[in-house]
Amino acid sequence: MVLYVIGLGLGDETDITVRGLNAIKSCDKVFLENYTSILGIDHKLLSEYYGREVILADRECVESGAEVIYAQAKEKNIAFLVVGDPFCATTHTDLILRAQEIGARVEVIHNASVMGAAGACGLQLYHYGQTVSIPFFTEGWRPDSFYDKIAFNRKGGLHTLCLLDIKVKEPDFEAMARGRTVYLPPRFMTVNEALEQLLEIEDRRKENVYSRETMCVGMARLGQPTQCIVAGTMEELLTVDFGGPLHCLAIAGEVHCLEEEMLVHFSVANWKARQELK
Amino acid sequence: MVLYVIGLGLGDETDITVRGLNAIKSCDKVFLENYTSILGIDHKLLSEYYGREVILADRECVESGAEVIYAQAKEKNIAFLVVGDPFCATTHTDLILRAQEIGARVEVIHNASVMGAAGACGLQLYHYGQTVSIPFFTEGWRPDSFYDKIAFNRKGGLHTLCLLDIKVKEPDFEAMARGRTVYLPPRFMTVNEALEQLLEIEDRRKENVYSRETMCVGMARLGQPTQCIVAGTMEELLTVDFGGPLHCLAIAGEVHCLEEEMLVHFSVANWKARQELK
Repeated sequence: MVLYVIGLGLGDETDITVRGLNAIKSCDKVFLENYTSILGIDHKLLSEYYGREVILADRECVESGAEVIYAQAKEKNIAFLVVGDPFCATTHTDLILRAQEIGARVEVIHNASVMGAAGACGLQLYHYGQTVSIPFFTEGWRPDSFYDKIAFNRKGGLHTLCLLDIKVKEPDFEAMARGRTVYLPPRFMTVNEALEQLLEIEDRRKENVYSRETMCVGMARLGQPTQCIVAGTMEELLTVDFGGPLHCLAIAGEVHCLEEEMLVHFSVANWKARQELK
Repeated sequence: MVLYVIGLGLGDETDITVRGLNAIKSCDKVFLENYTSILGIDHKLLSEYYGREVILADRECVESGAEVIYAQAKEKNIAFLVVGDPFCATTHTDLILRAQEIGARVEVIHNASVMGAAGACGLQLYHYGQTVSIPFFTEGWRPDSFYDKIAFNRKGGLHTLCLLDIKVKEPDFEAMARGRTVYLPPRFMTVNEALEQLLEIEDRRKENVYSRETMCVGMARLGQPTQCIVAGTMEELLTVDFGGPLHCLAIAGEVHCLEEEMLVHFSVANWKARQELK
Protein backbone atom coordinates (compact mmCIF):
# COMPACT_ATOMS: atom_id res chain seq x y z
CA MET A 1 0.00 0.00 0.00
CA VAL A 2 1.02 3.63 -0.05
CA LEU A 3 2.55 6.07 2.40
CA TYR A 4 1.48 9.48 1.10
CA VAL A 5 3.71 12.30 2.29
CA ILE A 6 1.59 15.34 1.59
CA GLY A 7 2.41 19.04 1.76
CA LEU A 8 -0.44 21.21 3.10
CA GLY A 9 0.85 24.57 1.89
CA LEU A 10 0.85 27.62 4.11
CA GLY A 11 -2.61 28.94 4.84
CA ASP A 12 -5.67 26.91 5.70
CA GLU A 13 -7.44 23.67 4.85
CA THR A 14 -8.05 24.76 1.25
CA ASP A 15 -4.34 25.13 0.49
CA ILE A 16 -3.99 21.39 -0.01
CA THR A 17 -3.83 20.29 -3.65
CA VAL A 18 -6.71 18.40 -5.22
CA ARG A 19 -4.31 15.47 -5.65
CA GLY A 20 -3.43 15.62 -1.96
CA LEU A 21 -7.05 15.75 -0.87
CA ASN A 22 -7.93 12.76 -3.06
CA ALA A 23 -5.02 10.83 -1.55
CA ILE A 24 -6.17 11.58 2.02
CA LYS A 25 -9.64 10.34 1.17
CA SER A 26 -8.11 6.97 0.21
CA CYS A 27 -6.27 6.68 3.53
CA ASP A 28 -7.07 4.71 6.66
CA LYS A 29 -4.99 6.87 8.96
CA VAL A 30 -3.88 10.49 8.79
CA PHE A 31 -0.92 11.90 10.74
CA LEU A 32 0.02 15.58 10.94
CA GLU A 33 3.63 16.58 11.63
CA ASN A 34 3.29 19.57 13.94
CA TYR A 35 6.69 20.65 15.13
CA THR A 36 8.45 22.36 12.22
CA SER A 37 5.67 24.67 11.03
CA ILE A 38 2.03 25.54 11.62
CA LEU A 39 -0.97 26.35 9.46
CA GLY A 40 -3.05 29.45 10.06
CA ILE A 41 -5.89 27.33 11.41
CA ASP A 42 -6.48 24.76 14.15
CA HIS A 43 -5.78 21.17 13.18
CA LYS A 44 -9.28 20.17 14.30
CA LEU A 45 -10.62 22.02 11.27
CA LEU A 46 -8.53 19.70 9.12
CA SER A 47 -10.25 16.67 10.66
CA GLU A 48 -13.64 18.13 9.79
CA TYR A 49 -12.56 19.06 6.28
CA TYR A 50 -11.14 15.61 5.51
CA GLY A 51 -13.81 13.64 7.36
CA ARG A 52 -10.92 11.78 9.00
CA GLU A 53 -9.34 11.94 12.44
CA VAL A 54 -6.03 13.80 12.22
CA ILE A 55 -3.43 12.39 14.64
CA LEU A 56 -0.75 14.83 15.77
CA ALA A 57 2.78 13.50 15.36
CA ASP A 58 5.30 15.37 17.48
CA ARG A 59 9.07 15.36 17.04
CA GLU A 60 9.55 12.37 19.33
CA CYS A 61 7.03 10.31 17.41
CA VAL A 62 8.52 11.11 13.99
CA GLU A 63 12.17 10.90 14.93
CA SER A 64 12.21 7.96 17.30
CA GLY A 65 8.96 6.08 16.98
CA ALA A 66 8.23 6.52 13.30
CA GLU A 67 7.30 2.89 12.79
CA VAL A 68 3.92 3.80 14.30
CA ILE A 69 3.47 5.72 11.06
CA TYR A 70 5.26 3.86 8.30
CA ALA A 71 4.80 0.25 9.43
CA GLN A 72 1.05 0.55 8.87
CA ALA A 73 1.67 1.54 5.25
CA LYS A 74 2.46 -2.10 4.54
CA GLU A 75 -1.21 -3.00 4.72
CA LYS A 76 -3.10 0.28 4.49
CA ASN A 77 -2.87 3.67 2.84
CA ILE A 78 -1.42 6.13 5.35
CA ALA A 79 -1.18 9.90 4.99
CA PHE A 80 1.60 11.86 6.64
CA LEU A 81 0.82 15.57 6.39
CA VAL A 82 3.47 18.27 6.55
CA VAL A 83 2.81 22.02 6.63
CA GLY A 84 4.42 23.64 3.56
CA ASP A 85 6.30 21.20 1.34
CA PRO A 86 7.43 17.79 2.62
CA PHE A 87 11.08 18.48 1.72
CA CYS A 88 11.41 21.99 2.95
CA ALA A 89 12.04 22.25 6.68
CA THR A 90 12.89 18.62 7.36
CA THR A 91 13.30 16.14 4.57
CA HIS A 92 11.68 13.24 6.43
CA THR A 93 14.21 11.16 4.54
CA ASP A 94 14.37 8.66 7.33
CA LEU A 95 10.63 8.03 7.35
CA ILE A 96 10.59 7.60 3.58
CA LEU A 97 13.58 5.25 3.41
CA ARG A 98 12.28 3.08 6.28
CA ALA A 99 8.85 2.80 4.67
CA GLN A 100 10.41 1.73 1.37
CA GLU A 101 12.56 -0.84 3.16
CA ILE A 102 9.51 -2.68 4.46
CA GLY A 103 8.02 -2.68 0.95
CA ALA A 104 5.57 0.23 1.19
CA ARG A 105 5.26 2.50 -1.81
CA VAL A 106 5.90 6.16 -0.96
CA GLU A 107 4.27 8.97 -2.88
CA VAL A 108 5.24 12.56 -2.17
CA ILE A 109 2.72 15.29 -2.95
CA HIS A 110 4.41 18.67 -3.09
CA ASN A 111 3.04 22.05 -2.12
CA ALA A 112 4.05 25.64 -1.51
CA SER A 113 6.74 26.23 1.07
CA VAL A 114 8.02 29.32 2.83
CA MET A 115 11.18 29.05 0.74
CA GLY A 116 9.14 29.67 -2.40
CA ALA A 117 6.51 31.97 -0.95
CA ALA A 118 9.25 34.28 0.34
CA GLY A 119 9.55 35.36 -3.30
CA ALA A 120 6.43 37.44 -2.59
CA CYS A 121 8.60 40.03 -0.81
CA GLY A 122 10.02 41.19 -4.13
CA LEU A 123 13.57 39.92 -3.66
CA GLN A 124 13.97 37.36 -6.43
CA LEU A 125 14.51 33.74 -5.43
CA TYR A 126 17.38 33.56 -7.94
CA HIS A 127 19.33 36.08 -5.89
CA TYR A 128 19.17 34.22 -2.58
CA GLY A 129 22.10 32.31 -1.16
CA GLN A 130 21.93 29.69 1.55
CA THR A 131 18.88 29.76 3.85
CA VAL A 132 19.68 30.04 7.56
CA SER A 133 17.80 29.15 10.73
CA ILE A 134 17.86 31.44 13.73
CA PRO A 135 17.36 29.60 17.04
CA PHE A 136 16.00 31.12 20.24
CA PHE A 137 18.94 32.21 22.40
CA THR A 138 18.97 31.01 25.97
CA GLU A 139 20.99 32.38 28.84
CA GLY A 140 23.92 30.07 28.23
CA TRP A 141 23.46 29.20 24.55
CA ARG A 142 23.81 31.97 22.00
CA PRO A 143 25.09 30.25 18.84
CA ASP A 144 26.15 32.34 15.85
CA SER A 145 26.83 29.95 12.98
CA PHE A 146 24.13 31.76 10.96
CA TYR A 147 26.37 34.86 11.08
CA ASP A 148 29.04 33.16 8.96
CA LYS A 149 26.47 31.97 6.46
CA ILE A 150 24.97 35.46 6.13
CA ALA A 151 28.51 36.84 5.72
CA PHE A 152 29.14 34.37 2.90
CA ASN A 153 25.90 35.26 1.13
CA ARG A 154 26.47 38.98 1.42
CA LYS A 155 30.01 38.66 0.07
CA GLY A 156 28.38 37.27 -3.08
CA GLY A 157 25.76 40.06 -3.15
CA LEU A 158 23.08 37.51 -2.27
CA HIS A 159 19.98 37.81 -0.13
CA THR A 160 19.53 35.56 2.91
CA LEU A 161 16.27 33.99 3.97
CA CYS A 162 16.18 33.53 7.76
CA LEU A 163 13.76 30.94 9.08
CA LEU A 164 12.84 31.66 12.67
CA ASP A 165 12.70 29.22 15.54
CA ILE A 166 9.58 27.38 16.66
CA LYS A 167 9.30 25.73 20.04
CA VAL A 168 6.42 23.30 20.21
CA LYS A 169 5.92 20.79 23.01
CA GLU A 170 9.09 21.82 24.80
CA PRO A 171 9.36 20.08 28.18
CA ASP A 172 9.00 22.27 31.27
CA PHE A 173 12.10 21.07 33.13
CA GLU A 174 11.12 22.79 36.39
CA ALA A 175 7.82 20.95 36.54
CA MET A 176 9.49 17.74 35.43
CA ALA A 177 11.99 18.01 38.26
CA ARG A 178 8.94 17.92 40.53
CA GLY A 179 7.89 14.68 38.82
CA ARG A 180 5.21 15.99 36.43
CA THR A 181 5.31 15.84 32.62
CA VAL A 182 4.45 19.35 31.58
CA TYR A 183 5.03 21.14 28.30
CA LEU A 184 5.61 24.86 27.85
CA PRO A 185 3.20 26.81 25.64
CA PRO A 186 4.40 27.00 22.01
CA ARG A 187 6.72 29.87 21.12
CA PHE A 188 7.34 31.37 17.69
CA MET A 189 10.20 33.78 17.10
CA THR A 190 9.10 37.20 15.85
CA VAL A 191 10.93 39.28 13.24
CA ASN A 192 11.79 41.70 16.07
CA GLU A 193 13.34 39.00 18.25
CA ALA A 194 15.33 37.73 15.27
CA LEU A 195 16.63 41.24 14.52
CA GLU A 196 17.65 41.74 18.15
CA GLN A 197 19.59 38.49 18.14
CA LEU A 198 21.19 39.30 14.78
CA LEU A 199 22.31 42.73 16.02
CA GLU A 200 23.63 41.23 19.26
CA ILE A 201 25.86 38.91 17.23
CA GLU A 202 27.07 41.74 14.97
CA ASP A 203 27.86 43.79 18.09
CA ARG A 204 29.85 40.86 19.47
CA ARG A 205 31.65 39.72 16.28
CA LYS A 206 32.08 43.20 14.75
CA GLU A 207 32.87 41.89 11.23
CA ASN A 208 30.54 44.39 9.54
CA VAL A 209 28.44 41.68 7.95
CA TYR A 210 25.34 43.89 8.40
CA SER A 211 24.26 46.83 10.52
CA ARG A 212 21.19 48.67 11.79
CA GLU A 213 21.09 50.28 8.31
CA THR A 214 20.92 47.01 6.35
CA MET A 215 17.80 46.63 4.22
CA CYS A 216 15.59 43.69 5.25
CA VAL A 217 12.09 42.42 4.63
CA GLY A 218 10.02 41.06 7.49
CA MET A 219 7.28 38.62 6.54
CA ALA A 220 4.47 37.17 8.62
CA ARG A 221 1.81 34.57 7.79
CA LEU A 222 2.96 34.19 4.17
CA GLY A 223 0.26 32.81 1.93
CA GLN A 224 -2.50 33.60 4.45
CA PRO A 225 -5.15 36.32 4.05
CA THR A 226 -3.54 38.36 6.86
CA GLN A 227 -0.08 38.13 5.28
CA CYS A 228 2.14 41.05 6.29
CA ILE A 229 5.26 42.09 4.39
CA VAL A 230 7.24 45.19 5.42
CA ALA A 231 10.61 46.29 4.03
CA GLY A 232 13.01 48.59 5.82
CA THR A 233 16.32 48.80 7.61
CA MET A 234 16.88 46.53 10.61
CA GLU A 235 16.45 49.61 12.81
CA GLU A 236 13.10 50.47 11.17
CA LEU A 237 11.73 46.92 11.28
CA LEU A 238 12.46 46.65 15.01
CA THR A 239 9.49 49.00 15.55
CA VAL A 240 7.02 47.13 13.31
CA ASP A 241 4.42 44.83 14.85
CA PHE A 242 4.03 41.89 12.47
CA GLY A 243 1.26 40.19 14.45
CA GLY A 244 0.78 36.44 14.91
CA PRO A 245 3.07 33.62 13.74
CA LEU A 246 4.82 32.43 11.61
CA HIS A 247 7.40 35.06 10.85
CA CYS A 248 10.46 34.98 8.63
CA LEU A 249 13.02 37.53 7.54
CA ALA A 250 15.00 38.28 4.40
CA ILE A 251 18.28 40.18 4.66
CA ALA A 252 18.87 41.91 1.33
CA GLY A 253 22.16 41.61 -0.54
CA GLU A 254 22.61 43.68 -3.69
CA VAL A 255 19.19 44.99 -4.69
CA HIS A 256 18.36 44.96 -8.40
CA CYS A 257 16.11 47.62 -9.88
CA LEU A 258 12.98 45.48 -10.27
CA GLU A 259 13.47 44.43 -6.65
CA GLU A 260 13.87 48.03 -5.56
CA GLU A 261 10.41 48.90 -6.85
CA MET A 262 8.90 46.10 -4.75
CA LEU A 263 10.81 47.18 -1.63
CA VAL A 264 9.35 50.66 -2.00
CA HIS A 265 5.91 49.11 -2.40
CA PHE A 266 6.41 47.29 0.92
CA SER A 267 8.21 50.15 2.70
CA VAL A 268 7.45 51.06 6.32
CA ALA A 269 5.94 54.38 5.15
CA ASN A 270 3.55 52.61 2.77
CA TRP A 271 2.74 50.05 5.43
CA LYS A 272 1.85 52.81 7.90
CA ALA A 273 -0.32 54.53 5.26
CA ARG A 274 -2.18 51.24 4.67
CA GLN A 275 -2.65 50.78 8.44
CA GLU A 276 -4.29 54.22 8.68
CA LEU A 277 -6.66 53.41 5.84
CA LYS A 278 -8.00 50.41 7.74
CA MET B 1 -12.31 42.95 -8.62
CA VAL B 2 -9.47 40.49 -8.23
CA LEU B 3 -6.48 39.41 -10.30
CA TYR B 4 -5.69 35.94 -9.02
CA VAL B 5 -2.11 34.87 -9.72
CA ILE B 6 -2.29 31.13 -9.21
CA GLY B 7 0.45 28.51 -9.07
CA LEU B 8 -0.48 25.20 -10.73
CA GLY B 9 2.24 23.06 -9.17
CA LEU B 10 4.26 20.62 -11.22
CA GLY B 11 2.28 17.64 -12.43
CA ASP B 12 -1.21 17.68 -13.85
CA GLU B 13 -4.57 19.38 -13.44
CA THR B 14 -5.03 17.96 -9.92
CA ASP B 15 -1.92 19.66 -8.58
CA ILE B 16 -3.76 22.95 -8.21
CA THR B 17 -4.80 23.78 -4.65
CA VAL B 18 -8.45 23.69 -3.63
CA ARG B 19 -8.17 27.44 -2.97
CA GLY B 20 -6.78 27.98 -6.47
CA LEU B 21 -9.51 25.91 -8.10
CA ASN B 22 -12.22 27.81 -6.21
CA ALA B 23 -10.67 31.08 -7.36
CA ILE B 24 -10.65 30.01 -11.02
CA LYS B 25 -14.31 29.08 -10.78
CA SER B 26 -15.06 32.68 -9.74
CA CYS B 27 -13.20 34.10 -12.75
CA ASP B 28 -14.46 35.43 -16.07
CA LYS B 29 -11.20 34.90 -17.90
CA VAL B 30 -8.33 32.49 -17.39
CA PHE B 31 -4.83 33.05 -18.80
CA LEU B 32 -1.98 30.50 -18.66
CA GLU B 33 1.64 31.70 -18.72
CA ASN B 34 3.35 29.12 -20.93
CA TYR B 35 6.94 30.16 -21.52
CA THR B 36 8.86 29.56 -18.30
CA SER B 37 7.67 26.05 -17.45
CA ILE B 38 5.26 23.35 -18.56
CA LEU B 39 2.91 20.93 -16.85
CA GLY B 40 3.01 17.21 -17.60
CA ILE B 41 -0.27 17.50 -19.51
CA ASP B 42 -1.72 19.43 -22.41
CA HIS B 43 -3.29 22.77 -21.51
CA LYS B 44 -6.52 21.73 -23.22
CA LEU B 45 -7.08 19.29 -20.35
CA LEU B 46 -6.98 22.28 -18.02
CA SER B 47 -9.84 23.93 -19.94
CA GLU B 48 -11.94 20.79 -19.55
CA TYR B 49 -11.08 20.45 -15.87
CA TYR B 50 -11.94 24.07 -15.04
CA GLY B 51 -14.92 24.32 -17.37
CA ARG B 52 -13.35 27.56 -18.63
CA GLU B 53 -11.43 28.45 -21.77
CA VAL B 54 -7.72 28.73 -20.95
CA ILE B 55 -6.01 31.44 -23.02
CA LEU B 56 -2.28 30.93 -23.60
CA ALA B 57 -0.18 33.97 -22.70
CA ASP B 58 3.24 33.91 -24.31
CA ARG B 59 6.24 35.98 -23.28
CA GLU B 60 5.35 38.83 -25.63
CA CYS B 61 1.85 39.07 -24.22
CA VAL B 62 2.98 39.05 -20.57
CA GLU B 63 6.01 41.30 -20.93
CA SER B 64 4.78 43.88 -23.42
CA GLY B 65 1.04 43.63 -23.68
CA ALA B 66 0.12 42.68 -20.15
CA GLU B 67 -2.73 45.16 -19.95
CA VAL B 68 -4.75 42.60 -21.94
CA ILE B 69 -4.57 40.60 -18.73
CA TYR B 70 -4.57 43.01 -15.81
CA ALA B 71 -6.76 45.82 -17.16
CA GLN B 72 -9.75 43.48 -17.19
CA ALA B 73 -9.26 42.84 -13.47
CA LYS B 74 -10.73 46.26 -12.83
CA GLU B 75 -14.21 44.99 -13.62
CA LYS B 76 -13.98 41.21 -13.52
CA ASN B 77 -12.18 38.45 -11.69
CA ILE B 78 -9.26 37.32 -13.82
CA ALA B 79 -7.03 34.28 -13.26
CA PHE B 80 -3.41 34.28 -14.36
CA LEU B 81 -2.04 30.75 -14.07
CA VAL B 82 1.64 29.97 -13.68
CA VAL B 83 3.19 26.48 -13.68
CA GLY B 84 4.92 25.88 -10.33
CA ASP B 85 4.77 28.84 -7.95
CA PRO B 86 4.01 32.37 -9.20
CA PHE B 87 7.24 33.76 -7.71
CA CYS B 88 9.64 31.06 -8.70
CA ALA B 89 10.86 31.36 -12.29
CA THR B 90 9.67 34.89 -13.00
CA THR B 91 8.21 37.05 -10.30
CA HIS B 92 5.58 38.67 -12.53
CA THR B 93 6.22 41.71 -10.35
CA ASP B 94 5.38 44.01 -13.21
CA LEU B 95 1.98 42.47 -13.84
CA ILE B 96 1.14 42.63 -10.14
CA LEU B 97 2.27 46.23 -9.61
CA ARG B 98 0.45 47.44 -12.75
CA ALA B 99 -2.76 45.71 -11.71
CA GLN B 100 -2.60 47.32 -8.27
CA GLU B 101 -1.97 50.74 -9.83
CA ILE B 102 -5.29 50.61 -11.67
CA GLY B 103 -7.04 49.64 -8.44
CA ALA B 104 -7.43 45.89 -8.92
CA ARG B 105 -6.90 43.68 -5.89
CA VAL B 106 -4.21 41.04 -6.46
CA GLU B 107 -4.31 37.70 -4.69
CA VAL B 108 -1.41 35.29 -5.06
CA ILE B 109 -2.10 31.58 -4.55
CA HIS B 110 1.13 29.70 -3.99
CA ASN B 111 2.01 26.18 -5.00
CA ALA B 112 4.92 23.77 -5.27
CA SER B 113 7.87 24.89 -7.37
CA VAL B 114 10.88 23.11 -8.78
CA MET B 115 13.01 24.99 -6.23
CA GLY B 116 11.19 23.20 -3.41
CA ALA B 117 10.53 19.89 -5.15
CA ALA B 118 14.25 19.54 -5.89
CA GLY B 119 14.52 18.62 -2.20
CA ALA B 120 13.23 15.20 -3.29
CA CYS B 121 16.71 14.32 -4.58
CA GLY B 122 18.00 13.99 -1.04
CA LEU B 123 20.28 17.04 -1.01
CA GLN B 124 18.78 19.27 1.66
CA LEU B 125 17.37 22.62 0.59
CA TYR B 126 19.24 24.24 3.51
CA HIS B 127 22.54 23.31 1.90
CA TYR B 128 21.90 24.93 -1.47
CA GLY B 129 23.48 28.20 -2.52
CA GLN B 130 22.29 30.42 -5.34
CA THR B 131 20.19 28.80 -8.07
CA VAL B 132 21.58 29.17 -11.60
CA SER B 133 20.02 29.03 -15.06
CA ILE B 134 21.81 27.30 -17.92
CA PRO B 135 20.87 28.73 -21.32
CA PHE B 136 21.10 26.86 -24.62
CA PHE B 137 24.44 27.65 -26.25
CA THR B 138 24.35 28.84 -29.84
CA GLU B 139 27.21 28.94 -32.29
CA GLY B 140 28.25 32.45 -31.36
CA TRP B 141 26.81 32.78 -27.84
CA ARG B 142 28.24 30.54 -25.12
CA PRO B 143 27.86 32.53 -21.89
CA ASP B 144 29.42 31.21 -18.69
CA SER B 145 28.23 33.44 -15.84
CA PHE B 146 26.70 30.35 -14.19
CA TYR B 147 30.25 29.02 -13.82
CA ASP B 148 31.18 31.80 -11.39
CA LYS B 149 28.03 31.26 -9.39
CA ILE B 150 28.67 27.52 -9.12
CA ALA B 151 32.27 28.29 -8.10
CA PHE B 152 31.00 30.57 -5.34
CA ASN B 153 28.55 27.96 -4.05
CA ARG B 154 31.13 25.18 -4.09
CA LYS B 155 33.65 27.33 -2.21
CA GLY B 156 31.05 27.45 0.58
CA GLY B 157 30.43 23.68 0.38
CA LEU B 158 26.97 24.36 -1.02
CA HIS B 159 24.90 22.50 -3.61
CA THR B 160 23.77 24.28 -6.78
CA LEU B 161 20.39 23.83 -8.41
CA CYS B 162 20.65 24.34 -12.17
CA LEU B 163 17.44 25.24 -13.97
CA LEU B 164 17.65 24.29 -17.63
CA ASP B 165 16.63 26.38 -20.60
CA ILE B 166 13.24 26.24 -22.26
CA LYS B 167 12.62 27.64 -25.73
CA VAL B 168 8.93 28.09 -26.45
CA LYS B 169 7.58 30.02 -29.40
CA GLU B 170 11.03 31.02 -30.64
CA PRO B 171 10.80 32.76 -34.00
CA ASP B 172 12.19 30.88 -37.01
CA PHE B 173 14.37 33.68 -38.41
CA GLU B 174 15.03 31.87 -41.69
CA ALA B 175 11.34 31.58 -42.43
CA MET B 176 10.75 35.12 -41.23
CA ALA B 177 13.40 36.42 -43.62
CA ARG B 178 11.21 34.93 -46.34
CA GLY B 179 8.31 36.95 -44.98
CA ARG B 180 6.44 34.27 -43.02
CA THR B 181 5.84 34.30 -39.25
CA VAL B 182 6.90 30.82 -38.19
CA TYR B 183 7.85 29.50 -34.76
CA LEU B 184 10.32 26.70 -34.04
CA PRO B 185 9.07 23.64 -32.15
CA PRO B 186 9.60 23.97 -28.37
CA ARG B 187 12.94 22.80 -26.99
CA PHE B 188 13.74 21.74 -23.44
CA MET B 189 17.33 21.28 -22.31
CA THR B 190 18.14 17.77 -21.09
CA VAL B 191 20.37 16.92 -18.14
CA ASN B 192 22.85 15.52 -20.69
CA GLU B 193 22.96 18.73 -22.72
CA ALA B 194 23.44 20.74 -19.54
CA LEU B 195 26.32 18.50 -18.43
CA GLU B 196 28.00 18.81 -21.83
CA GLN B 197 27.78 22.60 -21.66
CA LEU B 198 29.03 22.63 -18.06
CA LEU B 199 32.02 20.46 -18.96
CA GLU B 200 32.78 22.59 -22.02
CA ILE B 201 32.98 25.65 -19.77
CA GLU B 202 35.22 23.85 -17.24
CA ASP B 203 37.49 22.73 -20.12
CA ARG B 204 37.71 26.34 -21.30
CA ARG B 205 38.05 28.13 -17.93
CA LYS B 206 40.08 25.38 -16.17
CA GLU B 207 39.49 26.74 -12.65
CA ASN B 208 38.69 23.30 -11.23
CA VAL B 209 35.23 24.31 -10.10
CA TYR B 210 33.98 20.81 -10.92
CA SER B 211 35.04 17.86 -13.04
CA ARG B 212 33.72 14.70 -14.70
CA GLU B 213 34.00 13.13 -11.20
CA THR B 214 31.77 15.67 -9.44
CA MET B 215 28.66 14.18 -7.84
CA CYS B 216 25.40 15.43 -9.33
CA VAL B 217 21.74 14.54 -9.32
CA GLY B 218 19.73 14.66 -12.52
CA MET B 219 15.99 15.15 -12.12
CA ALA B 220 13.21 14.90 -14.67
CA ARG B 221 9.47 15.55 -14.39
CA LEU B 222 9.65 16.33 -10.66
CA GLY B 223 6.31 15.86 -8.93
CA GLN B 224 4.88 13.81 -11.80
CA PRO B 225 4.14 10.06 -11.69
CA THR B 226 7.03 9.38 -14.11
CA GLN B 227 9.49 11.44 -12.03
CA CYS B 228 13.08 10.26 -12.57
CA ILE B 229 15.92 11.02 -10.15
CA VAL B 230 19.41 9.60 -10.71
CA ALA B 231 22.56 10.47 -8.77
CA GLY B 232 26.09 9.97 -10.05
CA THR B 233 29.18 11.71 -11.30
CA MET B 234 28.83 14.05 -14.28
CA GLU B 235 30.53 11.34 -16.39
CA GLU B 236 28.01 8.71 -15.25
CA LEU B 237 24.96 10.92 -15.73
CA LEU B 238 25.97 11.72 -19.31
CA THR B 239 24.91 8.15 -20.18
CA VAL B 240 21.51 8.23 -18.44
CA ASP B 241 18.34 8.78 -20.48
CA PHE B 242 16.05 10.90 -18.32
CA GLY B 243 13.14 10.88 -20.80
CA GLY B 244 10.75 13.76 -21.49
CA PRO B 245 10.89 17.31 -20.09
CA LEU B 246 11.31 19.18 -17.78
CA HIS B 247 14.79 18.38 -16.53
CA CYS B 248 16.90 20.04 -13.86
CA LEU B 249 20.23 19.27 -12.26
CA ALA B 250 21.79 19.58 -8.82
CA ILE B 251 25.58 19.83 -8.49
CA ALA B 252 26.50 18.54 -5.04
CA GLY B 253 28.73 20.51 -2.69
CA GLU B 254 29.76 18.90 0.58
CA VAL B 255 27.54 15.87 1.10
CA HIS B 256 26.27 15.27 4.64
CA CYS B 257 25.67 11.75 5.89
CA LEU B 258 21.86 11.77 5.68
CA GLU B 259 22.24 13.08 2.15
CA GLU B 260 24.74 10.35 1.28
CA GLU B 261 22.16 7.66 2.06
CA MET B 262 19.70 9.26 -0.38
CA LEU B 263 22.35 9.58 -3.12
CA VAL B 264 23.02 5.85 -2.81
CA HIS B 265 19.29 5.21 -3.02
CA PHE B 266 19.19 7.17 -6.31
CA SER B 267 22.54 5.86 -7.66
CA VAL B 268 22.97 4.86 -11.30
CA ALA B 269 23.40 1.21 -10.23
CA ASN B 270 20.08 1.25 -8.33
CA TRP B 271 18.41 3.08 -11.21
CA LYS B 272 19.60 0.38 -13.65
CA ALA B 273 18.37 -2.35 -11.32
CA ARG B 274 14.94 -0.69 -11.17
CA GLN B 275 14.87 -0.38 -14.98
CA GLU B 276 15.48 -4.12 -15.31
CA LEU B 277 12.65 -4.91 -12.90
CA LYS B 278 10.19 -3.05 -15.12
